[in-house]
Amino acid sequence: MIAKTPAPPYFAVIFTSIRNNDDEDYLETALQMEKLASQSPGYLGHESAREEIGITVSYWENLESIKNWKANLKHQVAQKLGKEKWYSQYKTRICIVERDYSFENM
Amino acid sequence: MIAKTPAPPYFAVIFTSIRNNDDEDYLETALQMEKLASQSPGYLGHESAREEIGITVSYWENLESIKNWKANLKHQVAQKLGKEKWYSQYKTRICIVERDYSFENM
Repeated sequence: MIAKTPAPPYFAVIFTSIRNNDDEDYLETALQMEKLASQSPGYLGHESAREEIGITVSYWENLESIKNWKANLKHQVAQKLGKEKWYSQYKTRICIVERDYSFENM
Repeated sequence: MIAKTPAPPYFAVIFTSIRNNDDEDYLETALQMEKLASQSPGYLGHESAREEIGITVSYWENLESIKNWKANLKHQVAQKLGKEKWYSQYKTRICIVERDYSFENM
């Protein structure tokens, strides 16, 4: 689903990744992290898709809420496992969303 | 492939979409637009994946280069067809990338 974010400005974290073949605990942890993130203060929504690469964009009220989620202890454990096991490569980009526009075909 | 972007700040356009069943000319146009965008001044790279939703993030030097690409005549035609035929819903977000960090498992 396309995230229903408020009027800009708000923040986006673009996480682009390439997976390893090691699937152990990956899906379970990914779902757990989605749930945890959504309960984290300042969370506004997220969008995710994976083909050759995976792109997950999460939306946040401010930089503080992004820092706070990054520092979450369970998330820290997942980040460590991500480097050790699940990802061969990733890039995280922290952005301010300045403008947005939508289209919906009724 | 993860886009090799320069040091921030630069700009990102996050295009999140939900497709219709109408596939006519879609793939051909999508590939043509990728090629055209990459030749547009200020283009820095892009990343794309589709499952339930599609996410395409393109990266740009500045707002001028984004406006310029949006106004490209062939792109205008594709945007019109997108609304008429290919997408049931989409959202475009214009962002400034303020910070990024990478991981690569050697």
